Amino acid sequence: MMTTRYKLTMAYDGHLFHGFQIQPNERTVQGVIEEALKKMTKGKRVVVHGSGRTDAGVHAKGQVIHFDYPGKEIPAKNMMLALNALMPIDTVFFDSEIVDSDFHVQYSTKGKWYRYIVDQHRFTDPFNRFYTGHYPYPLDIALMKKAAKDLIGEHDFTSFAASGGQIVDKVRTIYYVNITSDPDNKKIIFDFIGNGFLYNMVRILVGTLLEIGNKKRPVDDIPRVLAAKDRQEVRTTAPASGLYLQHVFYEEVPKKYRLDLKKD
Amino acid sequence: MMTTRYKLTMAYDGHLFHGFQIQPNERTVQGVIEEALKKMTKGKRVVVHGSGRTDAGVHAKGQVIHFDYPGKEIPAKNMMLALNALMPIDTVFFDSEIVDSDFHVQYSTKGKWYRYIVDQHRFTDPFNRFYTGHYPYPLDIALMKKAAKDLIGEHDFTSFAASGGQIVDKVRTIYYVNITSDPDNKKIIFDFIGNGFLYNMVRILVGTLLEIGNKKRPVDDIPRVLAAKDRQEVRTTAPASGLYLQHVFYEEVPKKYRLDLKKD
Repeated sequence: MMTTRYKLTMAYDGHLFHGFQIQPNERTVQGVIEEALKKMTKGKRVVVHGSGRTDAGVHAKGQVIHFDYPGKEIPAKNMMLALNALMPIDTVFFDSEIVDSDFHVQYSTKGKWYRYIVDQHRFTDPFNRFYTGHYPYPLDIALMKKAAKDLIGEHDFTSFAASGGQIVDKVRTIYYVNITSDPDNKKIIFDFIGNGFLYNMVRILVGTLLEIGNKKRPVDDIPRVLAAKDRQEVRTTAPASGLYLQHVFYEEVPKKYRLDLKKD
Repeated sequence: MMTTRYKLTMAYDGHLFHGFQIQPNERTVQGVIEEALKKMTKGKRVVVHGSGRTDAGVHAKGQVIHFDYPGKEIPAKNMMLALNALMPIDTVFFDSEIVDSDFHVQYSTKGKWYRYIVDQHRFTDPFNRFYTGHYPYPLDIALMKKAAKDLIGEHDFTSFAASGGQIVDKVRTIYYVNITSDPDNKKIIFDFIGNGFLYNMVRILVGTLLEIGNKKRPVDDIPRVLAAKDRQEVRTTAPASGLYLQHVFYEEVPKKYRLDLKKD
């Protein structure tokens, strides 16, 4: 049967989702997209592929999906408008294109950009409780920036991955880490760009950098933790609420973010 | 019995509250504060007074409350810390003082400041669906600013108040209206400062200004609507999600906001 492959880019507020991946009896992003598509196909299931999973409570500003739509081709923009009309309002599609059938949203990625937002108010900010990780303790940004440099490049990230995953190869390359402070809003923003990230890796990296910024862990500890290849080295995982899948790269990650090349 | 009167200032995310005022079987702001106080008094009810009600879904950045705490006086700061520890995380107290027993949070007000935030994205922004009013249609800011000048001063606001309230005197003074655009975030921000506002008045004023900005209503229509003293003149009420009780004044409203004086 004729199908057309659509690639769409979307944002979602993760706080009422049990993650991206479809699960029985849980509200998931993949689930609500497939529900919407079912309304368009009169009940036929269209399988939705994501660039990667996001966990319960994790947000996306630039998640990418693809699916093969059966039957008559619909212009890419109309597909986006139709889905936005059918989807719940904690999701929104903002880009849409028709792609070749050899494009795969997961296997064609060249890199991913995750952002983590920390709120430093003494008490949890009511308006940001679902959208930041709350960390009210003192942080030395310069220490965190210095330590983050040790993450750049190709490393075995076993120490920074939640155990229990099926992935055996835990070598990934981090191209770019940036830490910025927004003192007016008492926020600290962590950006990570790499060729891929392991399960919970960004949240564990943030947890480690916060320990360093709070002087609970030495600034030069990251090379040692990486070399240990032992998940027990790091016990803090920053909460899901602060994490955003910001962007997925399908072309080479721009040179300005390729600090890993400069390091060598 | 000895009591001490506390005045506290608080923020809350209104989207999971059925408004400020206590109601049986509903989650309300007053209700959760009284619950927290009950834990401190071993079950004795302490009645909480607010500067005014906010409706279901309406937020506060500067709501003010008072109550008379029975028994031993607690320093104001400690009272705030104790309540923040006992309250749910969609509320936060950020200022606290002990006041004379002739201070009343509702009757001592000199003015109130409400803010309304409109989101102009074509589709509802998932991250702002509870925190803005969505209005995706074109708006001429200059027209709205011009029309808003006709609201400044003392007027009978019958045409701009939801019917059904018990309040007979519908004369209020608006000291200040400001409309600012934040094009980067596709937001429009309305600020209203006045000596008091009727039920739904800010949301109806915003609804009217949006009609003017969208050229559905003439720019010089406000004097006519005010003179009509008829609620049927205005049918649009902007959604609760965009409304914030920003500040309550207990000293005279600062001169920079007293445009009503300049008008005469």
